[in-house]
Amino acid sequence: MNPLSSPLLADLYQFTMLQTYLEQDMQQTAVFELFMRKLPPGRNFLVAAGLEQALEFLENLTFSTEELEWLASRFPPHVIHYLEQFRFQGDVHALPEGTIFFPNEPVLRITAPMPQAQLVESRIINLLHFETLIASKAARSVLIAPDKQLVDFGMRRAHGAEAGLLAARASYLAGFSGTATVLAGTLYDIPIFGTMAHAFIQAHDDESQAFEHFARSHPDNTTLLIDTYDTEAGAHKVVALANKLKIDNIIIKGVRLDSGDLAQHARNVRRILDDGGLCDVTIFASGNLDEYKLQTLLTARAPIDGFGIGTALDVSNDAPALDCAYKLQEFAGKPRRKRSEGKATWPGRKQVYRMFSRDGCICGDTVALEDGDPQQGTPLLQPFMHAGKRLRPKPSLHALRQQTLMHYQSLPTTMMTMDCADNYPVAISTTLQALAAQLDREQLKRDQ
Amino acid sequence: MNPLSSPLLADLYQFTMLQTYLEQDMQQTAVFELFMRKLPPGRNFLVAAGLEQALEFLENLTFSTEELEWLASRFPPHVIHYLEQFRFQGDVHALPEGTIFFPNEPVLRITAPMPQAQLVESRIINLLHFETLIASKAARSVLIAPDKQLVDFGMRRAHGAEAGLLAARASYLAGFSGTATVLAGTLYDIPIFGTMAHAFIQAHDDESQAFEHFARSHPDNTTLLIDTYDTEAGAHKVVALANKLKIDNIIIKGVRLDSGDLAQHARNVRRILDDGGLCDVTIFASGNLDEYKLQTLLTARAPIDGFGIGTALDVSNDAPALDCAYKLQEFAGKPRRKRSEGKATWPGRKQVYRMFSRDGCICGDTVALEDGDPQQGTPLLQPFMHAGKRLRPKPSLHALRQQTLMHYQSLPTTMMTMDCADNYPVAISTTLQALAAQLDREQLKRDQ
Repeated sequence: MNPLSSPLLADLYQFTMLQTYLEQDMQQTAVFELFMRKLPPGRNFLVAAGLEQALEFLENLTFSTEELEWLASRFPPHVIHYLEQFRFQGDVHALPEGTIFFPNEPVLRITAPMPQAQLVESRIINLLHFETLIASKAARSVLIAPDKQLVDFGMRRAHGAEAGLLAARASYLAGFSGTATVLAGTLYDIPIFGTMAHAFIQAHDDESQAFEHFARSHPDNTTLLIDTYDTEAGAHKVVALANKLKIDNIIIKGVRLDSGDLAQHARNVRRILDDGGLCDVTIFASGNLDEYKLQTLLTARAPIDGFGIGTALDVSNDAPALDCAYKLQEFAGKPRRKRSEGKATWPGRKQVYRMFSRDGCICGDTVALEDGDPQQGTPLLQPFMHAGKRLRPKPSLHALRQQTLMHYQSLPTTMMTMDCADNYPVAISTTLQALAAQLDREQLKRDQ
Repeated sequence: MNPLSSPLLADLYQFTMLQTYLEQDMQQTAVFELFMRKLPPGRNFLVAAGLEQALEFLENLTFSTEELEWLASRFPPHVIHYLEQFRFQGDVHALPEGTIFFPNEPVLRITAPMPQAQLVESRIINLLHFETLIASKAARSVLIAPDKQLVDFGMRRAHGAEAGLLAARASYLAGFSGTATVLAGTLYDIPIFGTMAHAFIQAHDDESQAFEHFARSHPDNTTLLIDTYDTEAGAHKVVALANKLKIDNIIIKGVRLDSGDLAQHARNVRRILDDGGLCDVTIFASGNLDEYKLQTLLTARAPIDGFGIGTALDVSNDAPALDCAYKLQEFAGKPRRKRSEGKATWPGRKQVYRMFSRDGCICGDTVALEDGDPQQGTPLLQPFMHAGKRLRPKPSLHALRQQTLMHYQSLPTTMMTMDCADNYPVAISTTLQALAAQLDREQLKRDQ
């Protein structure tokens, strides 16, 4: 059993509800929408990601004998019989990955018989929430440092293996140059990068010897970590070594700094390298970096060519979760509304329309009902799956990344920075507002 | 290929370094220790977790044909040949899961030929870091609410599938009652809990009808979600329904509140239930809870019997990562020390000794060299694996949980609360300090 594709990756209530849906013959069509309730503090927008993994999950959802046996100890035979045949047969509409979006806008809509649409809830949220979280975080670094090499270094402190892999994917989608995680490279065809660890230096009695051993093993791709003992002393050793290795046609490509005042060390190291004739040797920096520290280093004009961003990216340290929900908006042809305090939803099947200003920047969205509620602007939600089958071939991650970079160009400059821009206008159509009010009146009547 | 056990779950530099280690015949024994550099703000201690998953990873580490083929496109044949035969053959010492520990104390030590010990770095950190993060977070809720039912509700917003599963395991280990995640129940034998979603209520035209349908499907285990429209109105419907269902011997076990002022709603609902003769119906609360909100509800004496804690637990929202490191402390028989600014390590193979006061509370630890540096107190690191083989059978998670609850009893009361206690004393033995100073002097001499 591969836990990443198991249908038991669900909350227990999904199965208890499923039992009742079957017993009450509530198999009519349900429409669920996944959306964010609000932006994390300090953020101006979100970047949709994770759709590809969600579609794969839906496409391949079946119950193994082992899983059915486990369920049979807790659920009656008619439930097990239903699950034996289970295939997801619904429709999926979604924002294409890389789309910039805002609270209250559906990222994904599932239209399927109720037991199916409810069963997939938790894993669908789990996938879209996390990749969207990371893509949205990564976009911030990409936008402030568009000309720098940015590499995901975060797998070791990501929350488990899948988080490390999906963080590599989502950050690459959002414009990172690649990842250090080998398996992410193999699974998603992401460029992978690597240097050396302090342990490698420490394992040698002599730092210069360590540098030389590494360079001789990797004559065309050597980045040397120079901060194990003394960063500037390390840089001088690199200069001496480079001259020695020239004879054997071994080129040192770069050095990495991982501690201390990175801006100051980078300036010192740049001078030492340049004075030693190593103007082409790049400087790569890492060490608890995030987009705020990146901004500080950029503002200080630190001569750094690339950055390894690890933990802060992979756990989205300033906002490790988004306030998202997967809510029933229509059932058996009738729009539905949850009215819980502070958590009321907009009912019905919806579309998001986006307006652009004359200079090509996004300038306002309208959330409206999909049917009978036409709006100006470009509709953003697109169909991706019908009756359980994909409607289009799987796009390459590289193509999605290019698309995402294009979307960035439609951001007003105020939204590209780390400062909080004015709230982006997201209107709710008058028809949708009227429908919500009508449902509230009907509910009130029932409660009386 | 199961991505969760793939040896490619590594950083690229682990393979580039491995190549050089092989080419330079640096296969002598390396000793790496995993430790935390500091506590997250506001925390008094950490709880070790994840060892079982780390041991499983090491035990089963082999390269598949597919993985070797991928590597062969990037690494020379002698590296591939080495990896074809690869088995982890090292020793593992660790703090047993559930042990309370502090910064600078090794949580795990790996003693193995250098290429092996370096190769496993990232996944070992990834597993121990995350489960320790979650167990340490969960412990806070358990300690302030020891008599309440605490259930992990967080899978949907956990960072990927493995995070959801391991968060369920780590929080149960730390004293939670169980999880909502079905797969975690099957994989780790954790009790699972579930109620119903708002969608279930919304799918019915009538809330009472929804309650009745659910209760008839689950006559002996019904917890009804009563906040979809109006919490107190929901409670009155439960009273009416309970009387109706009594005839059929159907008992309503509990109600769940998920929004609004939980303390006030709980008091209102308790009164409505009690007035309706439903004194045995429990109240379960959920909705963006964390240990701080839990504390507020407990202080307010809200009549709530159990809590579903989701996102805040599974992402450790106030501290989504720990500052941890896996560092080389000895190689080829010689102690090693990293001196990078702000990141210097304590060299050598170490043991942690713990002292207890007369009342059985922990009162101070000493980090010392394992050999020739005897200290008072109980040694905490224990051997778990020798030459790649486990030294003891896999413990049940339930037994580990019992052990963890025992450890809590040794915490001074000041450390059990949510307030910051005085720093717990962790001494570095004079012999270890002297060794570090000696290595610094030697390094300085080499740099001159």
